[in-house]
This record gives sequence, structure tokens and C-alpha cells, in this order.
Amino acid sequence: MYHRGPEFAELLAECQIRLQACFGTTDPVLTLSASGTGAVEAAIANLVAPGERLLAIKTGKFGRRIGDIAQCYGAEVTWLDCPPGDAADPHLLQRALSESRFDALGFAYNETSTGVAQDLAAIAAAAVENRVLTIVDAVSAIGGIPINMEANALDAVVGGSQKALMLPPGLSFVALSPRAQLKLQQTTCPGYYFDLSRALDALRKGQTPYTPAVNLFSGLREALRIIHREGLAEVFRRHHCLGVACRAAMTAAGLALLATDERCASATVTAVRMPEDLDSSELVRRVRERDNILIAGGQDDLKGRIFRIGHLGTCGIDNLAAPVAAVADNLAEMGCDIDAASAVTAARDAFQTCQESSDAYDTGL
Amino acid sequence: MYHRGPEFAELLAECQIRLQACFGTTDPVLTLSASGTGAVEAAIANLVAPGERLLAIKTGKFGRRIGDIAQCYGAEVTWLDCPPGDAADPHLLQRALSESRFDALGFAYNETSTGVAQDLAAIAAAAVENRVLTIVDAVSAIGGIPINMEANALDAVVGGSQKALMLPPGLSFVALSPRAQLKLQQTTCPGYYFDLSRALDALRKGQTPYTPAVNLFSGLREALRIIHREGLAEVFRRHHCLGVACRAAMTAAGLALLATDERCASATVTAVRMPEDLDSSELVRRVRERDNILIAGGQDDLKGRIFRIGHLGTCGIDNLAAPVAAVADNLAEMGCDIDAASAVTAARDAFQTCQESSDAYDTGL
Repeated sequence: MYHRGPEFAELLAECQIRLQACFGTTDPVLTLSASGTGAVEAAIANLVAPGERLLAIKTGKFGRRIGDIAQCYGAEVTWLDCPPGDAADPHLLQRALSESRFDALGFAYNETSTGVAQDLAAIAAAAVENRVLTIVDAVSAIGGIPINMEANALDAVVGGSQKALMLPPGLSFVALSPRAQLKLQQTTCPGYYFDLSRALDALRKGQTPYTPAVNLFSGLREALRIIHREGLAEVFRRHHCLGVACRAAMTAAGLALLATDERCASATVTAVRMPEDLDSSELVRRVRERDNILIAGGQDDLKGRIFRIGHLGTCGIDNLAAPVAAVADNLAEMGCDIDAASAVTAARDAFQTCQESSDAYDTGL
Repeated sequence: MYHRGPEFAELLAECQIRLQACFGTTDPVLTLSASGTGAVEAAIANLVAPGERLLAIKTGKFGRRIGDIAQCYGAEVTWLDCPPGDAADPHLLQRALSESRFDALGFAYNETSTGVAQDLAAIAAAAVENRVLTIVDAVSAIGGIPINMEANALDAVVGGSQKALMLPPGLSFVALSPRAQLKLQQTTCPGYYFDLSRALDALRKGQTPYTPAVNLFSGLREALRIIHREGLAEVFRRHHCLGVACRAAMTAAGLALLATDERCASATVTAVRMPEDLDSSELVRRVRERDNILIAGGQDDLKGRIFRIGHLGTCGIDNLAAPVAAVADNLAEMGCDIDAASAVTAARDAFQTCQESSDAYDTGL
């Protein structure tokens, strides 16, 4: 498909409407041919001028990356540290924002490295009150967890193709509020490929500024149609209940969750503490080799100490039951006293109860 | 495929060896998840420090882009203008380089917008003599035209997935000479996603710094195997002869080539002047609608005035005969006195003669 022709423009227009639904916005969603980190960089490079002050919520690897990139672009970065497994404490955030003047607030809405989702309403309220521009890494949330960008008055929200949007990696997204678009006009982007003004201009013509990863765009249209057919509210509900189910299973197995506060637990990825004296790298290897299932270990400081189960995208309860059983079986083989059957039963029961009792999600549109 | 596992590392290692052959180098070839412009930007951001002086050969849209990006990164850019259809004049280049001190020379080896290939040996000699770092956009050359990076002492060569490498767009490449790697260590890259030091470190571990476009990497391995099976020297010969054939056909049809000097004509794309008073946009539209074949118009100043036929990747003489016939037929319908049959015959005859008489290419390895 020629990326300067009417066929591509039509594809882009369809993706645009459906992406906006996933982001909960009527504002433009720019699609970049780069992975999520590229889109986070684009948001920062275009919206945070050198010397401006950014508060970065350090929940883990991805929260930290926002601050790292902002420093790289000459911003003055202050960190709000969160213990691993915790979301930002709204009171501490409010205090940090009010104690000194910040231009921007950066955070990972759904911190993939710890399985933590932020209390978005509280963060949004603090951001609005303190008039800071919000830059949100929502790579592992978009298409799985509602973000209601417009209702929450968020300014720049970043998504990725390879998480709940079910595509291979290679595309990423930046949605921009009117305020962010205004800031864009006032800020000189020091780069070229990630200059979002060019992307915004091109989008109005049904194009991208440079050759896009066309086949991934075709895949994106299909993925968004799949989500549309299931219904976005149903997709959000399913993810919510998968999170509930995974946590129920791990708890039933006698394991400790990294995110101890249920209100801050991610709907797309669950992080679980390894039993004392065992290394999660060993569990990850065993699960891959014995069961042909890919779970993840911990990153950076959490390496070896946690494992993570992803439950997003095409995942249903049967897809979740398999890694739950594999984790429990392999931990038992590693010497833990764990009953795999009860873990799987707990997952199935919790999922069913959740699906029947949860209210339909308000997608914010 | 998990991009931090041994399977991906193995894939990357195989791609590395085969990419090196295409580039004509034993130095590392970094693969970025971005389109060609991103890789050109990466080369400049990492190798040209603010305030350094770059001479940019302005052959067309892509030669100009190198200078534009360098300006964007604070380099002092001087332009060497070439009339559309001309390659850089080696004498003028030598004079420009010797008249004042430059740090770097940027050019498009194969200028897609005009169908011009540079006299690489002459440019390389001038660059070596004047000790400038060379940054080469070879997006539409790699895998179709030999560049012999090492033999020509080029420093940073950029390729793309979607041209002669036959893949969809989304991956791009930067190969770095030892001198470029040294410069990399001495230069602070102002960006993050395109920081080639990180990419180089990750490559040594069989990884990429950020989530790569995994499915395109799988495709890349297959594409490189296809090239390997045909034999790189044979692939280069076929492209050379396709260029000869396309130019013979256009000339037989009474049309004028944009690149009048046969020695500077591209082997992967041929640019042809539109007959007076006719608009190439109209021809492009007709060929697409009547024949379902995609040819390209001119870009920027050449819009409407030229059309371009791509003949690269999986293209053989039969694939070339089709657009040749379509162009001739549609031009005839637009009122030109053109004999389509003789154009196609000229293409086939020239291709056969060329294939039989050309020496095998030295791939430089």
C-alpha cells in the first residue's frame, strides 16, 4: 500500500477514530513508526523546553525513563520516589507539586515493571490544581485499561502497538490535548523524526511525515476492529477481571503480590514476589522450557526477586489459567509447597464472579 | 518471539553477518525500529556535534534532508548544489572540501528523488584526502547496489528495509566504521531513542536497547536469506541490468532521462522527464487506475515534471516490462507518439545483453 495515496489516508482515518476511543479523547492521536520509548521521547522533546521543571514519578523502570529522557533534553527533573509495588501517594504528590513550581508532571500510568496502576483521578486532580502539563506513559494500558484522557484533562498520552493492542512492536502513539498542541507550537523540537508538529500537519493530510511501517498500520486497523467488535467497555471489563483473577490465583497459591494495595494493581500485568531464597530467573526459564509459556522476571533492582504474568490483548481466562498452572507447578518442583489446582480454580472463580458483578466500564466517550 | 531471549539473539547474529555483506563491511550494522529518516538522524545526532561543519551534497530531496537534519542539530551546513539529474561533480566537491575545513560530508549515494547514483570512488577519495567523516544515505541502494563501505572508507552508511531489502518499511540501519565508532564515543548524543552508543552496547549482547519491531526482524532474516541464495553478486548484477534496461526502454520510447550521464544513473530507480505540457501526476494516476501499477511522480521542484520507475528487490525483467508498457501505453493515450512494443523489446534486449556481458560484481568482501 502506497503511503501517500488515498487508501492509506482512509486506513489512517479509521485508525484515528478507533484510537481516540481507546485513549478516551476526541483530540488527535499521532502514530509514530518507533517503539514506545520513541513516542515518550517525542512527547518530552516537543513539550518540555530545556530548563523547564518536570516532576517524574519513579514507580519503576518506565516511570524513571520519563525522567531520564527529560534530563537528556535539558529539563530540570525532580523525582517522586515510590517503593516498588506502590503507586504515587496522592498526598505526597500534591505536596511536591505545591511546594515548588513545576512545568510538567511525567509518570507511567501502568508501570509494566511492577504491575502498578496509578490512581489516575487523584493525579489528574493534583495536576489540574497545580497547572502542570501531564506526560503519561500508558504503553501497557492503552486498549486494556480506560484512561479517559479528556475527562482526566491529561495532556500527552503515549501508547504502544505491542501490548493490549495485540500487534507486533513497531508503532507507538502520542495523543495531544489542545493545551499540549498549543505548547507544541511554542516549543522548538530539537529533533527531526520525532518532531510532532510535522506529524500533526501530516495527519491532517491523511499521511505521516516519513515513510510509515505500513504493514503494522494495516494490522492496527484489524486490531482496532477486533476491539470494536468485542466492545471497548467489554474489553476493559475483561482486562479488569483478568487482573482480579490473576491476583486471586497467586494469593490462593500462598504467594505475595508486589502491589499490595488492590486499588493500585494493574489490570494487564501482575507482579509477584518470589518465595525467599529462590531466583525468579530460574522460574522464568523453567516455565519457558517445560511449558512453552513466557513469563517475565524482574528488571533492574527487582531482577531475580519478582516474576510477572502478562494478561492482556487476546487473553481470556483460559490463557490465564495456563501460566497460573505453570507457575504453580514449577514452583512446586523448585521446592515450594504450592497447590496448582487450587490456584487455577481460584483464578476461574474470581474471573467469573468479577465478570458477572462488575459494572460496565464508562469508556469516557 | 521474546526480544531479550536467545532466539532473538540468534536471529540478530544471522542478520548482522548478512547485512554486513550488503554494506560491504565487517563493522557493526545497527538496526533501528524506525524508517530511513530516523537512521539518518541517528547518524547525524551521534557523529556531528553542534557547531561542527558539514558539507551536504544537494542532489535532491534526500541529499537535502541530510543537511536539514544537520542544521536541526546545530551543525554549520554548507551546500554543494547539483542540478536535478546530476551527481556531484568530483572536481567541484574536491574544491569545496579543500577551500575550507569541514568535519563531515553528507550525501545520498543513490538519490531516490532523481534516480542518480554518486560517483562513489571519486567522493570517497576526496573525503579521505580531506579527512572528513562521511555520512551516507544509502536507503535505496543497500541490497541492490554495491557500496563497498570498507573499501571506500565510508564512516556511517544508512540503509532501509523497504527498498532493495524487500521488506515493509519500519526498520533502518546504520553501519559504523571504526572511526565513526570513535567519534561516537567523543560525541554526546542529545537524544535517547537514537543514541547509537546504547544500540552498539545492546548489539554486543544480541539485543536492541528498546523493544524492536520483532516481526520485521523475522522478515529481515528471510529477505537476507533470499538475497544470499541468489548470491549478492548476482543480485547486484541483476539490479545493474534492470537499470540499463529501463533506460534503454525509455530512450527507445523517445523520452528523455533526468540523469543524462549513464555513469551516474541509478540501478534501482529511473527518473524520466515528462514530455512538454504534460503533467506526470496525471500519468501516475492513469497507470495506477488502468494498469494497477504504482509508479511515482516528482517531488518538490520536480513535481509534475518527471515520473519515476522503481526496479529493485524482487524485480526481474518481466516485472520491469509491465510498467514500461503501462507508461508507454498511457502516454500514447495522453497524446504522445510512443510505441509501447518497441520500448518493451528494448528493455528485454538490453537486459539480456547486459546480463550476458557484465562481469560479476565484486561485492567488496
